[in-house]
Amino acid sequence: MTCWSERELIHKIRQACNGSADGLVKGIGDDCCEVTASGSWLISTDTLVDSIHFDRSWHLPELLGRKSLAVNLSDIAAMGGRPRFVLLSLCLPEDLDVEWISRWLDGVLEMLQQFDCRLIGGDTVQGKGLVLTVTVLGEPVGNGAIYRSGASVGDTVWVSGALGSAGGGLELLAVEKRNPGSLDLSRWQPLLDAHLDPLPCIDLGMELAESGLVTAMQDISDGIATDLAHICQASGTGALIQVDQLPFLPELSSAAEVLGLNVEDLILRSGEDYQLVFTVRMGCERELLRLMEEKGRHVFQIGAVRHGQGVFLQKDSREEEISFQGYEH
Amino acid sequence: MTCWSERELIHKIRQACNGSADGLVKGIGDDCCEVTASGSWLISTDTLVDSIHFDRSWHLPELLGRKSLAVNLSDIAAMGGRPRFVLLSLCLPEDLDVEWISRWLDGVLEMLQQFDCRLIGGDTVQGKGLVLTVTVLGEPVGNGAIYRSGASVGDTVWVSGALGSAGGGLELLAVEKRNPGSLDLSRWQPLLDAHLDPLPCIDLGMELAESGLVTAMQDISDGIATDLAHICQASGTGALIQVDQLPFLPELSSAAEVLGLNVEDLILRSGEDYQLVFTVRMGCERELLRLMEEKGRHVFQIGAVRHGQGVFLQKDSREEEISFQGYEH
Repeated sequence: MTCWSERELIHKIRQACNGSADGLVKGIGDDCCEVTASGSWLISTDTLVDSIHFDRSWHLPELLGRKSLAVNLSDIAAMGGRPRFVLLSLCLPEDLDVEWISRWLDGVLEMLQQFDCRLIGGDTVQGKGLVLTVTVLGEPVGNGAIYRSGASVGDTVWVSGALGSAGGGLELLAVEKRNPGSLDLSRWQPLLDAHLDPLPCIDLGMELAESGLVTAMQDISDGIATDLAHICQASGTGALIQVDQLPFLPELSSAAEVLGLNVEDLILRSGEDYQLVFTVRMGCERELLRLMEEKGRHVFQIGAVRHGQGVFLQKDSREEEISFQGYEH
Repeated sequence: MTCWSERELIHKIRQACNGSADGLVKGIGDDCCEVTASGSWLISTDTLVDSIHFDRSWHLPELLGRKSLAVNLSDIAAMGGRPRFVLLSLCLPEDLDVEWISRWLDGVLEMLQQFDCRLIGGDTVQGKGLVLTVTVLGEPVGNGAIYRSGASVGDTVWVSGALGSAGGGLELLAVEKRNPGSLDLSRWQPLLDAHLDPLPCIDLGMELAESGLVTAMQDISDGIATDLAHICQASGTGALIQVDQLPFLPELSSAAEVLGLNVEDLILRSGEDYQLVFTVRMGCERELLRLMEEKGRHVFQIGAVRHGQGVFLQKDSREEEISFQGYEH
């Protein structure tokens, strides 16, 4: 049975789905929605579960709405695509806090607007716990999608920004929850923001796809140790990255110290940064840097693709294998 | 954290996703999957929740796997489309019965094979309860998808088969659960089958789309009283259907008697039959019947589209409004 408040929510979703959009043939209100594309569609789906993938005690509903989208948009960014359409499948508990979910939806809609995407349909059901499934459709740009499998020996390895920030933010929030008031969280706002409100690298992803210089790409959701290992595995290569080249925020050092955590561990192994890790065709590093300068972007060369298997970390004169040591969902 | 048994399940899903298919550019194993179509895509997504949308005490996991797909495939059938690709988003409880979910997946895969569809990706997460989200992508055939909005005054209203069967089956199973052994269920096997293992009308839907004779279509998931009302609402018309033209199985009469239920109520208002209700262009009834005879199919003319609003039932010489009186999920 649909209770009044759920009707309100569905009404709000339907209103958000109203209106036309390029490529949208049929929106919400029929058995299926219908979309057209000139080429192919990239599709990503992610499910977030209350108390497992997020903590409502510290995550404002609007920010969680934004993040629910960001996680999927980041998968589209990782293929170098342009996100276009979104479907929501919401499983809502009977004792649903309607204000919470309505504010969550506000965050979703804000993110949709920010990235010029349209909500086109979905499903709303009642269940025991809150389970939020988001599906995003995107279109490749440039010469097509960039896969994990395209890296070759001699390519260089790059990341789009600071690593470990979201992991640091999460640890800080967990300590604050256990011992309220024990930390002055405002000192580490950039880390908290990275966990609470990550931004997918959509524009950068498309610029890299259009550049023709990038051979493989993936977003960093489980930590560079795992996500670069996915590229290596798919490409049949190994990689060596330099510990002193890994970018991180100055706030991460002080947070790690206060938390009693190893900063290198956070940088390599913590998840949810939603930066991009990508490989650049051998000999094209300068061209990439020129392009990035033109676009006003900073990207960071952290290592190189090589023969063999596995991701290794160069530290002083030692090499240490770190493949798949990242956060496991 | 992923436990061993979940790894097995994910391995099984990955294996099912392996191999190439027409239009599949990139399957599971990258940030997104990628598909191409010559025209547009029809997309439908449905979420099923344990103890709300299904009862594991009487629903065999293989059959529930089949039904989880059937519900979505039926939405593609309702647009006259050909189903092509499927994504699964599974939220599985920690104390997951691995055998149950593995058998559920067997049912899903069987149904995929039966309708020549491919599993291309999805997501598996841990949660408090079992929540199964299925997304199906299909392609329109003939002159394109058939919407709910195309009915005109003078068109005739048809259904693809017996109504109320699944509702009757569900009521029988509920009584048997409350009072085990009180009924000889084998007497009503066709009703039980309609509830436990419904078949989407994929081939019929495509034949109707290709015929050019059908102006509006929808699948019957909430009962004809509600689903025909959707067509009327979207088309800006009314409809009058004849009580004595509504097809139902002979087993439904005896079941209704034993259950103390009104057979007309089951026919008009119970859900999950997954038959099609459609309107045929004025004057084209004979052509449709000829085509259906050629294809060896039975379809049933049950009424006509008319001016005004709402779905009315003609019964003796009286008219009774029945709009939106069907089963509410």
